Amino acid sequence: MKAWTIKEPGGIEQLIMVDRPIPEPTEDEILVKVESTAVNRTDIITREDKSLEAPYPILGVEVSGVVEKASPHYPELKEGTRVAGIVNRGGYSEYAVMPAGRAIVLPDSMSFIDGAAIPEVFLTAYQTMFWLGELKPQETVLIHAAGSGVGTAAIQLASRKITDANIIATAGSQRKLEVAKAIGADFTINYKKEDFAEKVLEYTDGHGADVILDFVGASYWEKNLKSAAVDGRWIVIGTLGGSEVEKVSLGQLMQKRLSLKTTLLTPRSDEYKAELTQEFAHRIVPFFEEDIIQPIIHSVLDFDNLKEAHRQMEADENTGKIIIDVADL
Amino acid sequence: MKAWTIKEPGGIEQLIMVDRPIPEPTEDEILVKVESTAVNRTDIITREDKSLEAPYPILGVEVSGVVEKASPHYPELKEGTRVAGIVNRGGYSEYAVMPAGRAIVLPDSMSFIDGAAIPEVFLTAYQTMFWLGELKPQETVLIHAAGSGVGTAAIQLASRKITDANIIATAGSQRKLEVAKAIGADFTINYKKEDFAEKVLEYTDGHGADVILDFVGASYWEKNLKSAAVDGRWIVIGTLGGSEVEKVSLGQLMQKRLSLKTTLLTPRSDEYKAELTQEFAHRIVPFFEEDIIQPIIHSVLDFDNLKEAHRQMEADENTGKIIIDVADL
Repeated sequence: MKAWTIKEPGGIEQLIMVDRPIPEPTEDEILVKVESTAVNRTDIITREDKSLEAPYPILGVEVSGVVEKASPHYPELKEGTRVAGIVNRGGYSEYAVMPAGRAIVLPDSMSFIDGAAIPEVFLTAYQTMFWLGELKPQETVLIHAAGSGVGTAAIQLASRKITDANIIATAGSQRKLEVAKAIGADFTINYKKEDFAEKVLEYTDGHGADVILDFVGASYWEKNLKSAAVDGRWIVIGTLGGSEVEKVSLGQLMQKRLSLKTTLLTPRSDEYKAELTQEFAHRIVPFFEEDIIQPIIHSVLDFDNLKEAHRQMEADENTGKIIIDVADL
Repeated sequence: MKAWTIKEPGGIEQLIMVDRPIPEPTEDEILVKVESTAVNRTDIITREDKSLEAPYPILGVEVSGVVEKASPHYPELKEGTRVAGIVNRGGYSEYAVMPAGRAIVLPDSMSFIDGAAIPEVFLTAYQTMFWLGELKPQETVLIHAAGSGVGTAAIQLASRKITDANIIATAGSQRKLEVAKAIGADFTINYKKEDFAEKVLEYTDGHGADVILDFVGASYWEKNLKSAAVDGRWIVIGTLGGSEVEKVSLGQLMQKRLSLKTTLLTPRSDEYKAELTQEFAHRIVPFFEEDIIQPIIHSVLDFDNLKEAHRQMEADENTGKIIIDVADL
């Protein structure tokens, strides 16, 4: 089968398409004939990971496709079932193995392109806002990087028709903010032009944000602290703005009784991911069927055009997901 | 009635006994004839609080005693009922008003001295370990300041007969560690003689502490970080070791997916305190009746000896609570 790996850890030029044997699923896995896969930041981190040694892995952590080989422990996932889900690498490929508990059965109405745009960003947004952020109706959530895949997913999950939260979204471009507004943000802030902390307090009459989705880290520290409401939950899921905070005042955190929760989805256990996936499939997938929420797709590229896909993500050009169409090889 | 206030914000010498009118409870409050009260660090903070203006408040945030005047909304708290609970100041007094929802009905077998030793420290320990720390059986909890009121309460609440957690306690004196061991700590560490982070990893075979009760803050930052288990909950309830942490690595927190939760009990809403009190009364008070856990009392002093009580707490002499006997005025 055709698959993308790397010549050695490094830049985009290291990406290479190779021939690999079709993988063998274990008893708890299914083999998926991949129809679409998607690009995630973790793929770029893996591509550059100097600690990796040859033979290098097939990149890619989420796919949509058809069950080619079923698991004896999951009779409901028959061969031919249309699924999407997160895989432990190996997604940029014609065939991928997936822990069966992570399979989301796709509604008939949903395309494989849309299916591949859902797992990583929507599960991350769901876990972050609800499992960690404990976001409740009428609370205010501050969503940074509103144009990102997780950002656009989070805005939709928090929106009127699902959670009925008050949504404040930040981004660095007008286009991204317009998309945020269109999919449910109540207020948008261009962080390049305005002090987002001041605007958050203004938009909430001084209350602040009950939940903060922080992809940025160090460079936003003071402003997020200022933006947070008393008893706020501040969820750190990325450090695009640096990881080292020069000075942290525990006293200031205590004055607001803040909870700073840090998380990563990728390294969590299969059990955790399976539980998260099944809750998400049960609670949220029906909203996709009713077209109340939609995966946000920036571009769809052919399988042999993967380097362009990585370029778009590194250039931060995308609003929503970058999808690779594997179907027509 | 006799009550203790301050001449002006400052040291122990500013404490002064005065005559004040008996307070009038609102419809949601009860009037308590105080039998015992206790000294808390928050009383010292209030005593020194330069932002206060005359007339200065009566100090003291917890009492035990008898319902002198009932609340129409709480018929179960008849006049004559023996209660203990947290008050909004006004505890160092012959009479105090208490929001009725915060009253813990004392078992007949429990003295007022013991009753006054329970609310602040046991409710704080309960809230911190279970509501915030989500401590589960077989998990490991690291309890600093093991000799403090909250520390001794936390050790008992986490112990075999109640939670069955694995308890590691730290303190700076052998006597305090012996008490910790006697009331349920599985391992004790003298932080003056040993690196507690190394010992925690040793005692947990490298797993670390799932829950950390941190009264210390800045000066323990690195060691607490090293002591924490993956998915650990690190609860900051004091900053005796300083509030300003230099250089915090969000990346290190993310690698362990840590939740840093900061809290203060005193400023929380009446609703919150009432809910906490009622859950505690329901779940934990029976263990006091069965003598499975006991309030730990360091000293019992007469009402006119309050200055000595403040001296003992400032000198950090106490293992357990410092109680003021108001009964025999």
